[in-house]
Amino acid sequence: MTKIEHFQQQINDLIKSQQFDGNPKALYEPIAYTMHQGGKRLRPLLALLACDLFGGDTEKVLYPALAVEVFHNFTLVHDDIMDKAPLRRGKETVYKKWNSDIAILSGDTMFALAYQYTLKTDTALIPGILQVFSKAAIEVCEGQQMDMEFETDSEVTLADYLDMIRLKTAVLLGASLEIGALVASAETQDVKAIYDFGIALGMAFQLKDDLLDVYGNQDEFGKVSGGDIAANKKTFLLLKALEIADKADHDQLTKLYDSKNTIAETEKISAVKALFEKLEIKQAVEAAMEDYYQQAIRFLRNIDASEDKKEDLASFASFLYTRNY
Amino acid sequence: MTKIEHFQQQINDLIKSQQFDGNPKALYEPIAYTMHQGGKRLRPLLALLACDLFGGDTEKVLYPALAVEVFHNFTLVHDDIMDKAPLRRGKETVYKKWNSDIAILSGDTMFALAYQYTLKTDTALIPGILQVFSKAAIEVCEGQQMDMEFETDSEVTLADYLDMIRLKTAVLLGASLEIGALVASAETQDVKAIYDFGIALGMAFQLKDDLLDVYGNQDEFGKVSGGDIAANKKTFLLLKALEIADKADHDQLTKLYDSKNTIAETEKISAVKALFEKLEIKQAVEAAMEDYYQQAIRFLRNIDASEDKKEDLASFASFLYTRNY
Repeated sequence: MTKIEHFQQQINDLIKSQQFDGNPKALYEPIAYTMHQGGKRLRPLLALLACDLFGGDTEKVLYPALAVEVFHNFTLVHDDIMDKAPLRRGKETVYKKWNSDIAILSGDTMFALAYQYTLKTDTALIPGILQVFSKAAIEVCEGQQMDMEFETDSEVTLADYLDMIRLKTAVLLGASLEIGALVASAETQDVKAIYDFGIALGMAFQLKDDLLDVYGNQDEFGKVSGGDIAANKKTFLLLKALEIADKADHDQLTKLYDSKNTIAETEKISAVKALFEKLEIKQAVEAAMEDYYQQAIRFLRNIDASEDKKEDLASFASFLYTRNY
Repeated sequence: MTKIEHFQQQINDLIKSQQFDGNPKALYEPIAYTMHQGGKRLRPLLALLACDLFGGDTEKVLYPALAVEVFHNFTLVHDDIMDKAPLRRGKETVYKKWNSDIAILSGDTMFALAYQYTLKTDTALIPGILQVFSKAAIEVCEGQQMDMEFETDSEVTLADYLDMIRLKTAVLLGASLEIGALVASAETQDVKAIYDFGIALGMAFQLKDDLLDVYGNQDEFGKVSGGDIAANKKTFLLLKALEIADKADHDQLTKLYDSKNTIAETEKISAVKALFEKLEIKQAVEAAMEDYYQQAIRFLRNIDASEDKKEDLASFASFLYTRNY
């Protein structure tokens, strides 16, 4: 078993051991349903890897890592209400399976539970962890608000988009790593560097997600191919295309995204993909990802830690970068 | 200026000084709107009074006290979505003025901000404050869930109701006081006693609210008289009446609450009030309140602190108990 597999097992065992069976049952059942559904458990894994990188006791970061995972799942429960998303990880979302009120309140409870989990570590570590965690929590909310506003905003630029995904996705990856480093009592400049590594990694991770949505193998990725195009989502791909397209292509793209129900969905997806191909958008996203990935690796290299352990994080970063799901 | 007035001014000044003007604006405007709307600021005041009671530095409890107030207001923002309440403190609720999505996400951000405020005090105090705060936060969510379930549950007993208001209302008053005591480094048994004082006070406070809803002067109380009756709310008054009524009165009450639109609202309120009068419900609520009030005073008496300072809290308790709004 590799170190990463070992950490993953520890995280999965810890999550499984949490029953979430409090009262009233109707409040806790959606929490257990959400938390026991699986997922990549990426954020807690990063927390453990960072703690290990700096020679910390990973047992002490397990509950704070769980806190981040519960927080992340809380944001999904609330996001799914706002996005009216019927499915998540192939299963009905909480608001669909129960109702919006239950999803709001179970989500709120998950947020409170997350904070409670951050406290299950050495007392001296708590204030530092809490600073990082609550800052990230606020930023994730800001990112989600920007994402919602983008739906109706016709002036969104690529820079706006990158700002949004930094807040909505990257900061929580950065915070997970930072928490791991804090638990290991890493030096201030290393704590900063591992956070920055996480931000760059998070950007690459989200761009990969955008890419997989259009070019991923549906069976592996688990989502319908072209879902973002069908939903008129302003992703890196679309914004990049709009940025570099000449007037004719720009008009055609705008028209396709304005088309709503006047054109069949599969036809729209094909037409958009053809334009993306013509504009070499896949290559543009891959180049941006590569930039973020290289940035991440540079932050990692500057960290004062054993090369072997840095390699664990580098190989995990490379997995995220090359994944097909 | 009395001590209570001085503390109130400090709290109001602190809240006014918080601009809540972050970005995106659409996320923070509802937060500023909610927080600058006024309110009794009961919870932060209790935190300051408890800190002062044990000779603590009240400056150190100001931000944690603000945290509790922001948390309380967050719960109102989310509750108003669930209750479909159009008005709060005479103004449009956030979900009405903006929309549900904004109310969900601004609320979530308030929750995260609340946690951030708890961190603005001496580092050594943070873990203890956070334990109390996150436990109360979870319990408030549990109480709100019970309250929602009561709407459609025909088997609710008076004991269930008291359990619900303990969670939904009383624990946050207890937690406010406990946080004040922790900041003052009070002895463990005194911390426990001031919490218990808060629970008993919170129970009396909520019963007073139920009473004012039916018997309060509309101009003073700021809510339409009989609102709970019109909305078929299961309050202490109704549940007590159902408990002690003979079969004929019980049937009549049940019929009135089942009547929905077949009977005019004012007529329904009058008929229910007549039955309450016959069953001496006002007196029964007042007796229960008196019990809780006396319980609170007993907890206060057992605390090891100056009699003068205990008198401050006792007089505030008595104000809550005799208030007409």
